Amino acid sequence: MTGAEAVLRTAAAAGVEVCFANPGTTEMALVIALDHVPSIRAVLGLFEGVCSGAADGYARMARRPALTLLHLGPGFANAIANLHNARRAHSPVVNLVGDQATWHRDADAPLTSDIASLARPVSRWVRETRAASQIAQDAADAIAAALEPPGGVATLVLPSDCQEGEVAGPAKPTALRAARPVPTERVEAAAAALRGRSNGAIHLGGAALTERGQRAAARVRAATGCRLFSECFPARFERGGDLPDVARLPYFPERVASFLEGLDIIVLAGAPEPVAFFGYRGMPSRLSPPGSRVLTLAAAEDDVEGALEALADAVGALAAPTASPTSRAEPPRASGALTPDSVASVLASLQPDGAIVVDESATTGLGYFPAAARAPRHSFLTLTGGSIGMGPACATGAAIACRDRVVINFQGDGGAMYTPQALWTQAREQLRVVTLICSNRAYRILQIESARAGVPAPGPQAASLTELSRPPLDWVHLARGMGVPATRAGSLESLEDALRRAIAEQGPHVVEAVLSDAGR
Amino acid sequence: MTGAEAVLRTAAAAGVEVCFANPGTTEMALVIALDHVPSIRAVLGLFEGVCSGAADGYARMARRPALTLLHLGPGFANAIANLHNARRAHSPVVNLVGDQATWHRDADAPLTSDIASLARPVSRWVRETRAASQIAQDAADAIAAALEPPGGVATLVLPSDCQEGEVAGPAKPTALRAARPVPTERVEAAAAALRGRSNGAIHLGGAALTERGQRAAARVRAATGCRLFSECFPARFERGGDLPDVARLPYFPERVASFLEGLDIIVLAGAPEPVAFFGYRGMPSRLSPPGSRVLTLAAAEDDVEGALEALADAVGALAAPTASPTSRAEPPRASGALTPDSVASVLASLQPDGAIVVDESATTGLGYFPAAARAPRHSFLTLTGGSIGMGPACATGAAIACRDRVVINFQGDGGAMYTPQALWTQAREQLRVVTLICSNRAYRILQIESARAGVPAPGPQAASLTELSRPPLDWVHLARGMGVPATRAGSLESLEDALRRAIAEQGPHVVEAVLSDAGR
Repeated sequence: MTGAEAVLRTAAAAGVEVCFANPGTTEMALVIALDHVPSIRAVLGLFEGVCSGAADGYARMARRPALTLLHLGPGFANAIANLHNARRAHSPVVNLVGDQATWHRDADAPLTSDIASLARPVSRWVRETRAASQIAQDAADAIAAALEPPGGVATLVLPSDCQEGEVAGPAKPTALRAARPVPTERVEAAAAALRGRSNGAIHLGGAALTERGQRAAARVRAATGCRLFSECFPARFERGGDLPDVARLPYFPERVASFLEGLDIIVLAGAPEPVAFFGYRGMPSRLSPPGSRVLTLAAAEDDVEGALEALADAVGALAAPTASPTSRAEPPRASGALTPDSVASVLASLQPDGAIVVDESATTGLGYFPAAARAPRHSFLTLTGGSIGMGPACATGAAIACRDRVVINFQGDGGAMYTPQALWTQAREQLRVVTLICSNRAYRILQIESARAGVPAPGPQAASLTELSRPPLDWVHLARGMGVPATRAGSLESLEDALRRAIAEQGPHVVEAVLSDAGR
Repeated sequence: MTGAEAVLRTAAAAGVEVCFANPGTTEMALVIALDHVPSIRAVLGLFEGVCSGAADGYARMARRPALTLLHLGPGFANAIANLHNARRAHSPVVNLVGDQATWHRDADAPLTSDIASLARPVSRWVRETRAASQIAQDAADAIAAALEPPGGVATLVLPSDCQEGEVAGPAKPTALRAARPVPTERVEAAAAALRGRSNGAIHLGGAALTERGQRAAARVRAATGCRLFSECFPARFERGGDLPDVARLPYFPERVASFLEGLDIIVLAGAPEPVAFFGYRGMPSRLSPPGSRVLTLAAAEDDVEGALEALADAVGALAAPTASPTSRAEPPRASGALTPDSVASVLASLQPDGAIVVDESATTGLGYFPAAARAPRHSFLTLTGGSIGMGPACATGAAIACRDRVVINFQGDGGAMYTPQALWTQAREQLRVVTLICSNRAYRILQIESARAGVPAPGPQAASLTELSRPPLDWVHLARGMGVPATRAGSLESLEDALRRAIAEQGPHVVEAVLSDAGR
């Protein structure tokens, strides 16, 4: 078989089932090999950022690795922004990047560039295959690197001649190390710190936000009175239904300061110490209250769920706090124009049981998180790396991982313009993705930041860089241009009707919610 | 003034007039400073690849540097694909990339990454400013680096605190070195090689493809009988009108082999030795005929035009060959379905005098180059680095550089989907860009490459990765969604009518030509 086929057979044996691809000439052998390994499904994206974002979304939901197939340095570069999010989400993603034939690199043909230099900032593991004879083992190593707890991005550069060469066969999957058990001393230290103290909290991230992790954390809360809060941008946060109510770290550092005020112990479970998203003058990088103690129960690569359960036992928690059945909020039946809060609460009131909500709603969606606490059980996926353009792509991959669930991409219009091509893949694959575009026709966060920087009324150039209203984007046209039916809503009633219909559809749908402050 | 303002004032003093921007929070000081330096025009792109491609197109036409303004690593990453083309085009582009405050980097906040590692593969010069006091000089150095002959990409990483800090003022522009004169011995060697020999050729690239360069080359041809051909993907090729007829190196290596057959001398003027675009089994990297001599008259960084004029004098050429007035080809008045050749010849017959033709038409446009030789005088810009998604963005920047000329983006549908957001900037800026989308609804080049690789009938997965017909993209909807009027044409008559009307408009227009073989 060819080296390309050996790569794919190695991946299939390791449990890989999907390859998000935007190939070119140097990946032709891999494209051809996909027909020999039908257990790996090829999904075409028309832009590489769709492929990498979809791989991230798939990995977050399927909890197994996804492949991307990308075309040399420039093709890989287009995938980087969403790989940055995948890296912060600890998503197991394996990039297969074609390259010039080994013997052709020195010719410096137009598409030649240093792919490894591009790959390192978003990859925990980078390798360039040197010979066809090594290609299968390189693939096995790449997959193992992506799966090494807590998961991450591995990039394997595959020269075209190595893909084309004849090889003996696939490599065996590498034996994987499980997440590292947490030493008893760390559990005891956390238990001692939280026991009998009213000003403690557990900062939950990564695997702490699974159902198992949260239920264990809730036991600790019930026994010690500590607070529970999640990181600001969790990769996947199971919420709603009878799950415990867990708060979320705010975004702006001044809000974090008041949120954390009075805490003297912060126990980290799968999350890093809270830091500011950006460095603002006069505000610190690290946001734990001055004088507080921060201690790590479990790092991201540890057995976070096991550590929380051990902590619950150590503090003498009961088996499980009784779950209070949630009463669903009724949709706000008020009529009228759309505001950020009313859009968020309509969504929270209508999302179906088992929804996957991919949130890149930015400023519009601030009210969604509290509103959705009482929604039916759902998975909540956020912008882990802050690299916008994640939503449409991540939703696409999540829908491929979970064909029986409805995916709702709660999406700002500015961010959507970085990866609009994802809609085409949703149409082609007939995915149940409802994209709720929040059209405020502005980079609203930049307008807020400008005011925060002391410039409440920017001049014409600064204003022009934050306004998306000249001309207004028309998401109904854009969606239809990519084969996705679409509806525009300018009032609460029409938004509710449109969302209900879109959720009931079997394929994708775009609902453009034009906010009352659009363009301001 | 702030460091940010000092950067912009330094750039303005060095002749910079435009900044293609997609900023974020870490660039807020630069955004605010743009209102204090109104001689630099801020142009918003909704995706960073639009900014970098526009900067490339602007630099190719204006022959002066363009700024981009980008948001940390992920924002820069989205710009890389078109920076790769700019790098191969030797376009002077200066990237200003905001970064976390110097004191905040160690916190490893979500958007933090190694920007320099991302920048190096596409930049001839990379620097991270360390302190506000150095920021102005860093900006002057960046601009000088971009302008150093033959021009290139410079990337300056600007931590937010350095932008915000108070500084004394701008830096003086760095004195620039002119293109290096070519030593007399090289001119004499080339003259000796070409004189009295029938099997010689000059390979023209870069500055050799200006009017001055080509007229000098034509004098050499008239005196020696040598052939003239351009590199396959020139950055800017002046053509049409009474300019000399210069051939173009083919794309596929087997065609290059027959094209170059029989040559025993190839003189390089601003172009590298011809190499294959990709390494194909059984074909060489370097495409000069076996046994031929390749000698460099002028490298890209040399005074290429001066060298060609010196060569013309050395071979005893007359002042200038008499120009034969061109007779304009009539449009092919045949009716019927659209084929690649008929689309190309309609465009060549209708393009107005002084057009700028940005060609990313890929397989559809193969017939355009010969057809346009008899068109009125025009500038022809191509995909220098092979990184697709260049056309819509490059056309946007070219139109901003030359507001009095019509820009025609001759564009494949597959490539257009990498940077469709450029249409929005064209609408906002009311640019005279006619985008002629060649809708064959396929990655046709990959279908050709698959057949070349010995797989004439690919299986279902390989086929699905090259077909863009399920669903078909609707470019009329897509364009209108971004505020650009659009027309669909399915026959030669309707294409001709639509193109004539689009060319006459004062703002942008999209014409979608649906080819008769679309979706096959």
